[in-house]
Amino acid sequence: MTMKAEIIAVGSELLTPDKIDTNSLFLTEELNKLGIEIVRKTVVGDDRALLMEVFRDAVNRVPLIISSGGLGPTEDDLTRETVAELLGRKLVRSDLIVRAIEARFRSFGRPMPEANLRQAMVPEGSEPLDNPRGTAPGLWLEAHETMIALLPGPPRELKPMFREQVLPRLHRRVSPVRMFHRELRVTGLGESHVDHLAGPVYTRYPEVQTTVLASPGEVQIHLRMWTENAAHAEATFLDIERGLDLALTDRIFSRDGSPLEVIVAQDLLKQNATIAAAESCTGGLFAERLTTIAGSSAYFLGGVVCYSNEMKTAWADVPPELIATKGAVSTEVAIALAEGIRRHVGSTLGVGITGIAGPGGGSEEKPVGTVHIALASATGVRERALRLPGDREMVRLQASQAALDMVRVHFLYNGKTPPKRA
Amino acid sequence: MTMKAEIIAVGSELLTPDKIDTNSLFLTEELNKLGIEIVRKTVVGDDRALLMEVFRDAVNRVPLIISSGGLGPTEDDLTRETVAELLGRKLVRSDLIVRAIEARFRSFGRPMPEANLRQAMVPEGSEPLDNPRGTAPGLWLEAHETMIALLPGPPRELKPMFREQVLPRLHRRVSPVRMFHRELRVTGLGESHVDHLAGPVYTRYPEVQTTVLASPGEVQIHLRMWTENAAHAEATFLDIERGLDLALTDRIFSRDGSPLEVIVAQDLLKQNATIAAAESCTGGLFAERLTTIAGSSAYFLGGVVCYSNEMKTAWADVPPELIATKGAVSTEVAIALAEGIRRHVGSTLGVGITGIAGPGGGSEEKPVGTVHIALASATGVRERALRLPGDREMVRLQASQAALDMVRVHFLYNGKTPPKRA
Repeated sequence: MTMKAEIIAVGSELLTPDKIDTNSLFLTEELNKLGIEIVRKTVVGDDRALLMEVFRDAVNRVPLIISSGGLGPTEDDLTRETVAELLGRKLVRSDLIVRAIEARFRSFGRPMPEANLRQAMVPEGSEPLDNPRGTAPGLWLEAHETMIALLPGPPRELKPMFREQVLPRLHRRVSPVRMFHRELRVTGLGESHVDHLAGPVYTRYPEVQTTVLASPGEVQIHLRMWTENAAHAEATFLDIERGLDLALTDRIFSRDGSPLEVIVAQDLLKQNATIAAAESCTGGLFAERLTTIAGSSAYFLGGVVCYSNEMKTAWADVPPELIATKGAVSTEVAIALAEGIRRHVGSTLGVGITGIAGPGGGSEEKPVGTVHIALASATGVRERALRLPGDREMVRLQASQAALDMVRVHFLYNGKTPPKRA
Repeated sequence: MTMKAEIIAVGSELLTPDKIDTNSLFLTEELNKLGIEIVRKTVVGDDRALLMEVFRDAVNRVPLIISSGGLGPTEDDLTRETVAELLGRKLVRSDLIVRAIEARFRSFGRPMPEANLRQAMVPEGSEPLDNPRGTAPGLWLEAHETMIALLPGPPRELKPMFREQVLPRLHRRVSPVRMFHRELRVTGLGESHVDHLAGPVYTRYPEVQTTVLASPGEVQIHLRMWTENAAHAEATFLDIERGLDLALTDRIFSRDGSPLEVIVAQDLLKQNATIAAAESCTGGLFAERLTTIAGSSAYFLGGVVCYSNEMKTAWADVPPELIATKGAVSTEVAIALAEGIRRHVGSTLGVGITGIAGPGGGSEEKPVGTVHIALASATGVRERALRLPGDREMVRLQASQAALDMVRVHFLYNGKTPPKRA
């Protein structure tokens, strides 16, 4: 039903511990959308005999091969020659490619090095794929029953070449089946908890392939469906979403794969609200995440990282007596931080975060992972106490995620107390 | 001379756009250290016929195969059966494994599900590899001329199993050649500039494999050498380092792969110095990076993210007239931020960062990427003006890197003016 394809990544650097082939993720997503299934991925070094074997085997197995890498101008770059030999085709010089490479060097004000002429030697009968972002042209070949696309390795060259020049060629040849994709994101529940609640919903749809992935403070639910019928896919996804809404109540924060800071930024903009934060254990991570977004100065007025008790007092008016009696990591200090920073900055919302990220600083009463978060607004202040698992980085990530989620939930219920949840 | 190996990652989820096999990076590093070279990596789905083909071809090519995944208790997990069939061995029940799995479930207070008995069916003559972190045991097989290690997919199960149970078996069989590795990190120069300066040094050592990798604000130089002789490797690396020190002057900040924030933290601790920061365009990234490190409260006293002009004045005493006349993004405001935050917090050093991260906010005079950084200390204040390329994320990363590097250079020259550099 669907067409099968293999992806081959060429390059000795991809067989070292430093570098991994990530082009295949992009290519898989794009090919899946066309209804093309990836059945194998291979990584092979710049070695003629091994390369020949990999391509020969793939040609015998599948009707479509996409390769990346090995198209450069040096002696190490063997993809062109190897594929020509495999298919029994002569290498011929493409004047079109010579001119394109010459033009590229001319635009830098440099003459074309002799070595780059190698890149113009292509297997007879192949179609060059223009590369405006580099010197290595791609190639499209058809032989026997197989289509082969040879693409350059650098992602910024490969991606546009694939989209602009390979996709149209594939469109003409593939079946009308497409892959449709929906990504929901959930926070406040662990992976197995999400799976326990969501499983009974999504397993009712055997035609939808579901993948549940977890990262600190977040679970992603990927829904994929292969069909000719876009309306059917959309209706099925909506149906599943409705079921998941019931199962996961208000834990789903994103329905298009956007991260939580983007969702919170949209809420702030929509409500014409501003925000400020006083952070201790997260060390600026909350501010950093909210300000990764372009235009964040419209809602993020300022933040302080008050690691020392003195700074908690100086910047957020936390009374020294409160720190002395309750401890810097406490409900009371989180509330004082949130209210103090809101007052200082004059923002709509104020966030206070204090906790023990570890590995040191924990005690029996307040172990590593103890975090208190408060959100102050015109209607009052709300507080959460958390015990977060994992190492320093995980505690900080989860704490920033929980703080962002308090802001989201605040807007969701218009500042009123949210109902008890799963 | 060196042994050749292939890595096979099994699992249909590794052929989706969501998930990539990263176990192979760990395995490559570990195998390289033993002098074993990876010649091919293959990813294949949970499909019996395809799996069989992949293993059969690999057995015919190399003396060592390491696979990950496909050892779970479900019908999808086919690695055990496939390898048994390929080698013409019966599946036999391992009572050792049954007992191990039963014990694991007992420790959770649950009976072993019937399905998990599948995991105890192993090819005759194989050695089980215990898995204290999961139910899927690994397997070690030797057949014809080939060693095969079947490992579970989850990295937290695979890594200790490989280290504790596969490495000792390999140690007994491999040649005395080992891989030695050194990672240097450089900042303040682009990748091609580093390569231009460093190339003449490292190309003099053909026995050392050099990889130059770039990320925003940083270039990594990996040196790898395959030899029996540890002293020779160490002497060669030292020789290259001396050459690179001359070529790159003080741009090398790390000789063991540590990131810049770790180096700066060490400097601060060594000098018994403290630091505070007033950030605008980096939005807390500078503070966040310095506080990722355990024990950072010893030197990081506090930071402010003063996005708005009012907060620049409130938290770092930047005179409103200065902002009005020079602009928020200016040498003068960076200096005022650094001096103001140092005075406010009472730290040894104060850092001020102001700039335009984009995509909006640029002008002809001050385009996106314009960043001013200042470092205030007891001996005065130093300032840098930068024009950084790339998108918002890249500008922020590079700006935080440049600010950290000013602190490093400050300690390198004891607060005196550094010499003119490459």
